[in-house]
Amino acid sequence: MSAVPENFLSRTARVDPAAVHPFPRSRKVYVQGSRPDLRVPMREIALGDTPSVLGAEKNAPVTVYDTSGPYTDPGAAIDVRNGLARLRAAWVEERGDTQSLQGPSSGYGRERAADPALAHLRFAAAHQPRRARPGRTVTQMHYARQGIVTPEMEFVAIRENVRLAEYRDRGLLARRHPGQGLGARIPHEITPEFVRAELASGRAILPANVNHPEGEPMVIGRNFLVKINANLGNSPLSSSIEEEVEKMTWAIRWGADTVMDLSTGPHIHETREWIIRNSPVPIGTVPIYQALEKVEGRAEELTWEMFRDTLLEQAEQGVDYVTIHAGLLLRHVPLTARRLTGIVSRGGSILAKWCLAHHRENFLYTHFEEICEILAAYDVGVSLGDGLRPGSIADANDEAQFGELEALGELTRVAWKHDVQVMIEGPGHVPMQLIRENMDRELRDCLEAPFYTLGPLTTDIAPGYDHITSAIGAAMIGWLGTAMLCYVTPKEHLGLPDKQDVKEGIIAYKIAAHAADLAKGHPAAQLRDNALSKARFEFRWEDQFNLSLDPDRAREYHDATLPKEAHKLAHFCSMCGPQFCSMKITQDVRDFAERHEVEEEGAAEQGMRDKAREFMEQGAKLYREV
Amino acid sequence: MSAVPENFLSRTARVDPAAVHPFPRSRKVYVQGSRPDLRVPMREIALGDTPSVLGAEKNAPVTVYDTSGPYTDPGAAIDVRNGLARLRAAWVEERGDTQSLQGPSSGYGRERAADPALAHLRFAAAHQPRRARPGRTVTQMHYARQGIVTPEMEFVAIRENVRLAEYRDRGLLARRHPGQGLGARIPHEITPEFVRAELASGRAILPANVNHPEGEPMVIGRNFLVKINANLGNSPLSSSIEEEVEKMTWAIRWGADTVMDLSTGPHIHETREWIIRNSPVPIGTVPIYQALEKVEGRAEELTWEMFRDTLLEQAEQGVDYVTIHAGLLLRHVPLTARRLTGIVSRGGSILAKWCLAHHRENFLYTHFEEICEILAAYDVGVSLGDGLRPGSIADANDEAQFGELEALGELTRVAWKHDVQVMIEGPGHVPMQLIRENMDRELRDCLEAPFYTLGPLTTDIAPGYDHITSAIGAAMIGWLGTAMLCYVTPKEHLGLPDKQDVKEGIIAYKIAAHAADLAKGHPAAQLRDNALSKARFEFRWEDQFNLSLDPDRAREYHDATLPKEAHKLAHFCSMCGPQFCSMKITQDVRDFAERHEVEEEGAAEQGMRDKAREFMEQGAKLYREV
Repeated sequence: MSAVPENFLSRTARVDPAAVHPFPRSRKVYVQGSRPDLRVPMREIALGDTPSVLGAEKNAPVTVYDTSGPYTDPGAAIDVRNGLARLRAAWVEERGDTQSLQGPSSGYGRERAADPALAHLRFAAAHQPRRARPGRTVTQMHYARQGIVTPEMEFVAIRENVRLAEYRDRGLLARRHPGQGLGARIPHEITPEFVRAELASGRAILPANVNHPEGEPMVIGRNFLVKINANLGNSPLSSSIEEEVEKMTWAIRWGADTVMDLSTGPHIHETREWIIRNSPVPIGTVPIYQALEKVEGRAEELTWEMFRDTLLEQAEQGVDYVTIHAGLLLRHVPLTARRLTGIVSRGGSILAKWCLAHHRENFLYTHFEEICEILAAYDVGVSLGDGLRPGSIADANDEAQFGELEALGELTRVAWKHDVQVMIEGPGHVPMQLIRENMDRELRDCLEAPFYTLGPLTTDIAPGYDHITSAIGAAMIGWLGTAMLCYVTPKEHLGLPDKQDVKEGIIAYKIAAHAADLAKGHPAAQLRDNALSKARFEFRWEDQFNLSLDPDRAREYHDATLPKEAHKLAHFCSMCGPQFCSMKITQDVRDFAERHEVEEEGAAEQGMRDKAREFMEQGAKLYREV
Repeated sequence: MSAVPENFLSRTARVDPAAVHPFPRSRKVYVQGSRPDLRVPMREIALGDTPSVLGAEKNAPVTVYDTSGPYTDPGAAIDVRNGLARLRAAWVEERGDTQSLQGPSSGYGRERAADPALAHLRFAAAHQPRRARPGRTVTQMHYARQGIVTPEMEFVAIRENVRLAEYRDRGLLARRHPGQGLGARIPHEITPEFVRAELASGRAILPANVNHPEGEPMVIGRNFLVKINANLGNSPLSSSIEEEVEKMTWAIRWGADTVMDLSTGPHIHETREWIIRNSPVPIGTVPIYQALEKVEGRAEELTWEMFRDTLLEQAEQGVDYVTIHAGLLLRHVPLTARRLTGIVSRGGSILAKWCLAHHRENFLYTHFEEICEILAAYDVGVSLGDGLRPGSIADANDEAQFGELEALGELTRVAWKHDVQVMIEGPGHVPMQLIRENMDRELRDCLEAPFYTLGPLTTDIAPGYDHITSAIGAAMIGWLGTAMLCYVTPKEHLGLPDKQDVKEGIIAYKIAAHAADLAKGHPAAQLRDNALSKARFEFRWEDQFNLSLDPDRAREYHDATLPKEAHKLAHFCSMCGPQFCSMKITQDVRDFAERHEVEEEGAAEQGMRDKAREFMEQGAKLYREV
């Protein structure tokens, strides 16, 4: 944190120190891979000892998956004007299948780079774009299918294990419930070869544009930890570049695995550059939003050429995955006319309007092969957009939605032909009893490509609380096999999220994702629950705070009732008061059992005898032999 | 609201006007039953017209279930010193099977009534207790089994229908997804006879102590709307009587269907009297808490005689249901010794300690027949407590928990023998994949008595957000058939909830309950979602706010981004800005379709032709016939 500059960009904004200081009693650790430059960051949470009255046990630190990047490493030199270290640059270069370009291939990109009026907004340390050498494909799926295990694959294998082997060796994984899921098969240990096989099959993606070497590799697939995405982005009505960069560092601090930049203002290009250069997580976009800006909001004026230029522009900046609404077909559009809420996806409505205005097929569909050729040259993943996702409970699981889903399956085959990594976007607003059909159909129609859903929201009646209405659906569909959950903030449907809303949305989704990991039986998941519950039972308040998803809030809520430092070590908690604590009584039960050497069997028998005698005397008939 | 006194009780506290003013554009309506004094309160939300550009349609008002009692009726005279009107007094009296008592049967109750030092705390308008005449049983289950439809049953039938017939007549129920559940069979219209049959079978309960005539009857059962409970109660460390009464009016405003008073301070008796006299919803308690107070926290000193006196005391004050941990048996206790978090239920740990200290069977179990005789004389429902509910993911669904559940099944049979209304308490902390087993076993072991669960929390790692970790589990188990969900606030595990926490917990649980109602296909549920979504689509912001669970927050969040009054009528929303609104574009799509007289079939065919020609020319193979 030492090196966070006071000012950057406009010289008035700065990275909020609250977003970059390490978590309490946490330290950044790096697990060394097979080569010196392969070091996988994790967060290690140190724990206190069990109090002597409860056994004076040492408690092993807990290591957790860490999305926050170098920002929480006090040893890392952070200067947002220079961007993050280019972690993957050597790996990309070594493969020898890409080449540096003299400048942007995109006309728009060249124009922006040359405009002196933008100098004050422009990211200063120029990024030199790369692309595949002619005839080469540079996607992780391509390597995987060639049988090549890349450093990126090894990185994510180590990352997904979260030092599990160490815990297993210490016997700490014993207490774990078996999981369940729709065809999830999570191995006890994730190997680089397992990652490769998952990528080759298309069941997982590893979004890693050759132009985003700052990224720390991560994987999205249902046989891995469930991931979450946070949407950021300014709008004509608010927000600045500084705020967006700051929101990104804030979002990854709380656990966003990827960030989608959905900016729509006049400086989309410059904002994106700042975000990518400073982001350790994959950045996704919806290029049609920017294309629409270029035609001043007139959807009917969109052209393939302009879209293609936008795609090149973004691919060369380093966008890791793009949402493409290529499955919304002309024949689907009239299916939405009788919906309660029509088309609510922005991308979907833009393309629907284009289709109707020209009475021609969606140009993203007709040009999809060319799109794939571009994506394959940079390793940009494609997130096939669900432009017809339902915008209300009433419209869930209708013909329009599932018609588009089938088209997404067709497009998946096409993308895979080009070794382009694919995920499938899903709804939306869906009542609980209709959620499973979404997952079943996605697995079937889209050939098990990773599913990436927005919620789903399980009711429409709680604007202001849609992080909760949707966390319910997200947890369920994550359990069933959805690989990534796109967060929803409390401001959904009402306004633009501020930093606090972003955090609320992320925590709600970390809960959903973790609940899903537990339910699928991910071997790394229950360890943290057990450690926190043990800390709770032993009144180790500090450990309980530090193991939680939001240590700041846990501490604040606790201190609101029992603010004194001494109380944090006290053997009672604030809900019941000193005389009346169930945990204290449980401890008495254990002590009693020990003192009297009561064994399970013995106690039961003794109890039976006593009870039996008493009941005989009373003639009561209540008791039932088991 | 006019009659809310400025001061009551201590003359310094008052009912917060924020808790009692009517909701915006809402009015209290009363649906008349078969007799003049049977008027069922509901809340009717008036809606604006669809804007002329979208068709200038009139939108019928939406009627919603209303738990808030007379507090939101501007025509009601409210004086907390007098208590609410005694709605059911005549019904109870007419039945002729109860008698007025000269004073409390409980020794403790007499002692408190006589103590001059308590005069300043005592509820002034003396409540005259009643109980069944000798040999009579006065429970709603008893009447139901005799084939009698009581006014209470008719009241809840009308209440559960929420004026559905009117909506059906106007064709507004057409757009509704079929539901699913574990054996839920919700009729299209709830009749008094249906209520009677459900009560007679034990599948539902109608908690209505003859000593709580102020209560508005409600029903708890899986073939009715899912209900939620809010726990209130002071503790030695905080809170006053005034605050507890105020929290009760606050809790029912936001939707609490019942309130449990879990006070543990020195004035439990007086606090409870104030709450009951002013509560339109059933009040539940855990009598063992108060019994423990009487022995100054020394569990081993508890006796049946003292518990019996406490039960009489509370029954005669008007408690509508009591949690009794009678299923925790001596032989279960050692099963908890190896748990990660032992026994976390307060009641459970008290009784476990008692059992071990005396090495005798739980006295609530051995005296359960006598308990039932008391409950039957006042119509106090019994909520069979799950003293061994798991306190962590690790301990979910273990032998201790399910052993106790089997014992609860046995006790259910005993209670039903006495025509005592029964519900079964459930966990706790349970990962998603283990939730269903809880419901399955409860239905089987406890003979379909209504299930009443605390959450369950689906992960342990988010203290500060346990209203969310548990709303996920609550929604799921509600869908599966749980009849009532006990709320969890954000302060769970950390401290005592304040008013804001109570509201957050209630809204999270209204979401869970409503999501469950949707998923079960309750006929009254989706109407509100559809109305809100239609308002959203038509940019009727005010209607969107007013139809939401929390109109205040929805408005506040909206105004944070777009504060101007004019914007609330504008045809764009704050997320996308004026040029870029998917709802606007959808409207364009509809208009376009209309102008060009594009029918679904026609458009599809036309699109096919265009697309086909284009694709032929390009030789593309993407398209797939469906």
